[in-house]
Amino acid sequence: MTAPDSAETPHRGRSSQTATLAEIAREAGVSAPTVSKVLNGRADVAPATRSRVEELLRAHGYRRRRAEASRSPLIDLVFHELESAWAMEVIRGVENVARDAGLSVVLSESAGRLTPGRTWADQVAARRPHGVILVLSDLDESQRALLTSRSIPFVVMDPAGDPGADVPSIGATNWQGGLAATRHLVDLGHRRIAAISGPQRMMCSRARVDGYRAALETAGLPVDPDLVRTGDFHHDAGYRLGRELLSLPDRPTAVFAGNDLQALGLYEAARELGLRIPEDLSVVGFDDLPVARWVGPPLTTVRQPLTEMAEAAARLVLELGRGDEAPVATRVELATSLVVRASTGAPVAGS
Amino acid sequence: MTAPDSAETPHRGRSSQTATLAEIAREAGVSAPTVSKVLNGRADVAPATRSRVEELLRAHGYRRRRAEASRSPLIDLVFHELESAWAMEVIRGVENVARDAGLSVVLSESAGRLTPGRTWADQVAARRPHGVILVLSDLDESQRALLTSRSIPFVVMDPAGDPGADVPSIGATNWQGGLAATRHLVDLGHRRIAAISGPQRMMCSRARVDGYRAALETAGLPVDPDLVRTGDFHHDAGYRLGRELLSLPDRPTAVFAGNDLQALGLYEAARELGLRIPEDLSVVGFDDLPVARWVGPPLTTVRQPLTEMAEAAARLVLELGRGDEAPVATRVELATSLVVRASTGAPVAGS
Repeated sequence: MTAPDSAETPHRGRSSQTATLAEIAREAGVSAPTVSKVLNGRADVAPATRSRVEELLRAHGYRRRRAEASRSPLIDLVFHELESAWAMEVIRGVENVARDAGLSVVLSESAGRLTPGRTWADQVAARRPHGVILVLSDLDESQRALLTSRSIPFVVMDPAGDPGADVPSIGATNWQGGLAATRHLVDLGHRRIAAISGPQRMMCSRARVDGYRAALETAGLPVDPDLVRTGDFHHDAGYRLGRELLSLPDRPTAVFAGNDLQALGLYEAARELGLRIPEDLSVVGFDDLPVARWVGPPLTTVRQPLTEMAEAAARLVLELGRGDEAPVATRVELATSLVVRASTGAPVAGS
Repeated sequence: MTAPDSAETPHRGRSSQTATLAEIAREAGVSAPTVSKVLNGRADVAPATRSRVEELLRAHGYRRRRAEASRSPLIDLVFHELESAWAMEVIRGVENVARDAGLSVVLSESAGRLTPGRTWADQVAARRPHGVILVLSDLDESQRALLTSRSIPFVVMDPAGDPGADVPSIGATNWQGGLAATRHLVDLGHRRIAAISGPQRMMCSRARVDGYRAALETAGLPVDPDLVRTGDFHHDAGYRLGRELLSLPDRPTAVFAGNDLQALGLYEAARELGLRIPEDLSVVGFDDLPVARWVGPPLTTVRQPLTEMAEAAARLVLELGRGDEAPVATRVELATSLVVRASTGAPVAGS
């Protein structure tokens, strides 16, 4: 995606095709008001006509001009899943920026699918928000075209897949975070360090585990594949994979848990097995949710500035919507930082 | 508020006044399309004209007919504050019902004020959602009139104040929850039982503490005013008031913490003072947030079915919007239940 065009001249797309609304109408064999209706998401257009018009809008790379005037005072925020305290931090960040800009936030959930449904894109086109923020979620080609043709900018936060170089996105330094978490455990003297990753399809979880591997390798420690397990970022995975890891004949003395919720599941597994944290097991999380400070013992974790990331995403999408400047960076990564609390310590000799 | 009128005949309000849009226009000395513009929240109406029209709409108890056809596929969800995992449970419930109905959720925060701002009401009137759900928040008279004149139904969830008999609301049995929590501690043998309440202005927090008092009184135990402290439902209040209570010369052996977040603050205070839970101190929370199961020790708490309450609120507001039946109950309370985990036990003799 490139920045939407707010100029009054017809837009010249990358395909060098130019079309006005009237030209699209002529080509589709309909009236200009009918094309307008399609653009406004009105229901009173025959499905076949609508498809034909949408197809031409896409083919010509049509983008609506003067979009700003016709926008609703809304920002769309789409989650992969609306499950945890994690989502709450993101909502707060977007809400902060939206409130200052006099906008309300529309929340949707793509409910486990990593691309929001077709109906969602139609609804967004019809309500004309100032922009769309996708969290751990992505758009397919036709959805991107639909939003682009309406000059509705979008930004991806912490992309699950590789969003492509032309999609503006906000992330965190996941690799550096995994590196810092694991180095901290190495520095404490741990040698058998396990990792529980998030889902493989999410780039952020791959990057964290790669950081873990890099820390071991640069310390001259072997990476034991049996000590790396794949979870899904939920509490139950931390519990289940924690039970597996802690029941190994040569169990790890420390675990990088991938995120805070998996770390809490690991806490539960350790409690059930009678292992004390940090005396028998050191644990590092990732995210630094509010709960990390409250659990016993308080969790050592990698702080990911979720609220600030969400604020940055909201500001970026509003900037793209104003179109008054081409954004310099389409991929911004905010720094993570290790927060040492009471869940990590030196391994007990001989354990 | 009464149920919105979906009939095609002019509405006859409680004041027995009847007015069509044309009559309002005549009385205001403007054209009918101008009244329409005001109803649709359009910006191109002079402020003075707008006020005059709004005043007449209110005075005549005007309610828009055929509202259903002109609605946007949205539900408005307004929070007092968007802070905790508590809000996440509510959002999930509303999102569940909205998704099934093909609607999106617009989120706003009244940011500490217990009544959303004027701008908010104007925006809602302009975007014409299917309904409005207010969480621990309320509307003032002019906001109610504004929504009623547009036939936008609203429901209050867990009202902070007394919403009035004519405002549909969904709550939980807070008093019974406070009673059950405290009876559980009495049955374990505790005699010095403290309570940390939420803010005094919230009815739910008053009801919980009243349940606590009733449990003590029916057990023939004195209510020591020094053992009842007022918090704000946040972690920090639980920590601060917990430190105070646990530093008393004759400290309590058990605390009903008012909600889960305050219970977690109390955990931290106990940890700092070297008191073990439950050996030295029993703790009961309220809400049963996901984190209650994950902390060490897992928290005994009163389960409030937040997601189900939010689902009920969303279903109720959609029913009111359809107007096909007068709802039987305008105040629904869902049952709370005590969930016993590991943070409560018998007091140690002599402590």
